[in-house]
Formats: sequence, C-alpha cells, structure tokens
Amino acid sequence: MSLADRGIPLKFAYTGVEVKDMDASIRFYVDGLSMELLDRHRIQETKGEVAALRSPGSEQLLELNWYPNATYRVGSELDHLAFEVKDVPGTVEKLVQHGARRCGEVEKRPKYIVGFVQDPNGIWIELFEARTG
Amino acid sequence: MSLADRGIPLKFAYTGVEVKDMDASIRFYVDGLSMELLDRHRIQETKGEVAALRSPGSEQLLELNWYPNATYRVGSELDHLAFEVKDVPGTVEKLVQHGARRCGEVEKRPKYIVGFVQDPNGIWIELFEARTG
Repeated sequence: MSLADRGIPLKFAYTGVEVKDMDASIRFYVDGLSMELLDRHRIQETKGEVAALRSPGSEQLLELNWYPNATYRVGSELDHLAFEVKDVPGTVEKLVQHGARRCGEVEKRPKYIVGFVQDPNGIWIELFEARTG
Repeated sequence: MSLADRGIPLKFAYTGVEVKDMDASIRFYVDGLSMELLDRHRIQETKGEVAALRSPGSEQLLELNWYPNATYRVGSELDHLAFEVKDVPGTVEKLVQHGARRCGEVEKRPKYIVGFVQDPNGIWIELFEARTG
C-alpha cells in the first residue's frame, strides 16, 4: 500500500550501508544480531547486490549494498538514508530550499520514481515514490 | 517497557549520524523532511548534544549527534547503528565470535548498560539494555 493510500506525506523508511562482503555481512546481522533476511537480489545497472533485513516484529529496515567496482574505504560505510514520499520532484525542490544539495536528476524507474539530495552534512538522502499509473 | 518484558531478545532501534551544526540539521529534518523532534539534550561526558527524531507514526528513529571537539570529515557521517538487547555482555561475546571487533569495555551507566563493537565493515554498533535493578 502506497503512502498516498495511507494519507501519509513522508516516512523515514530504511538505513542503507555499504558492505565489503555481502555473504559475511548477512551472516553477521542474521546469525549475530538475529535479524531476518527479507530480500537479496542483484542490481542490473551496477552489477552489485542489495539485501534488506529487519529485527523480528520491527518496521525498521537495514539495507546492505555491495558494489563490485567500489573501493571500500573509511567513509563509505553510510550509503544513504531513505525516505518514502508522496511527491519526489516536489520534495527535492523543498529540500534544496532547506539547504540540501541536488544530486542528479529525478529518475523514473519501472516501479519507482527516485531522487537524491545531500543533507547539510553531506549525508546522501534517497527519496522514493511508488509509481501508480 | 523493556525488551525482556516484551519477550524480544534484540531489536534494531535507531540510526545515529554525526552532524556539523545541530540547529541546522534539526531544521532540515523537521522543516524539510517533516520529522518530529522527540528529544534534544546535552551529554555530560562529551559536552556534545544529541537529538532524536522520527517520521509521524513511525517507530524508526534518527539520532543526530554533535560533538564540540570533533573535526567533521567525510567518513564521520555514520555514527553508529543501535540495537536494544536483553544481555549486553553476552551479545558482545556472541558478536566477537561472529567477526566483530570489541571496542572498549561494557559500561554500566545510570540508566543503561552499553557496549560497542564494530561489524565486519568497521561500522560501529551500539548494544544497549535498560537497567532494571
């Protein structure tokens, strides 16, 4: 069910972190921290992988991102914070007025409209909206 | 209500990020991203400040941390992921067996027992437990 259906304008949806080794990281969070693996799949564009985890009974998601050509370094641990929104282009404009840096154009992907900005600390923020039409 | 009361062993509780300017960051997340400011207070030990925010109706918390003597740099954006657990010392031992690096001793603070480890990517993980006795 989309946010628009629920009458909610905006929601902090998950924290995305970058990992060095997807198998080792999934083992750590599943076996070590009792999280459930909800999904793991390959990303066509980057040839990388993404996995979604959560604590049982929790809504709070942790997203693990692995990129095949990334040079992992201190500082790449936090990939992005993600917010589900009703209106991606409008939210990007509003955030730029509130001090965000625009990062690329809003993308219309098959299932989602996606935009990126950086917050006043340089933290990447993903804004996404399910496509209805 | 503590986790033990609810019969839950472990829960991903919040994402903590480091910020350059607490006022500017709170304005960004409250005015720009419609989050609610739940709490903001000074930390005795570090003379820094901490603030907790969430999207209306969501359980997912974002913690903003400001340190007066920190040299903000690329790489300090992600402060830590936090898990509420039933047994901090036991969880630290378990995580070390699962590839975590131990970071200091488990601390008994007035309200919480707190331990830190680093995950296989170097991401800092806080484990906390409310003190009952």
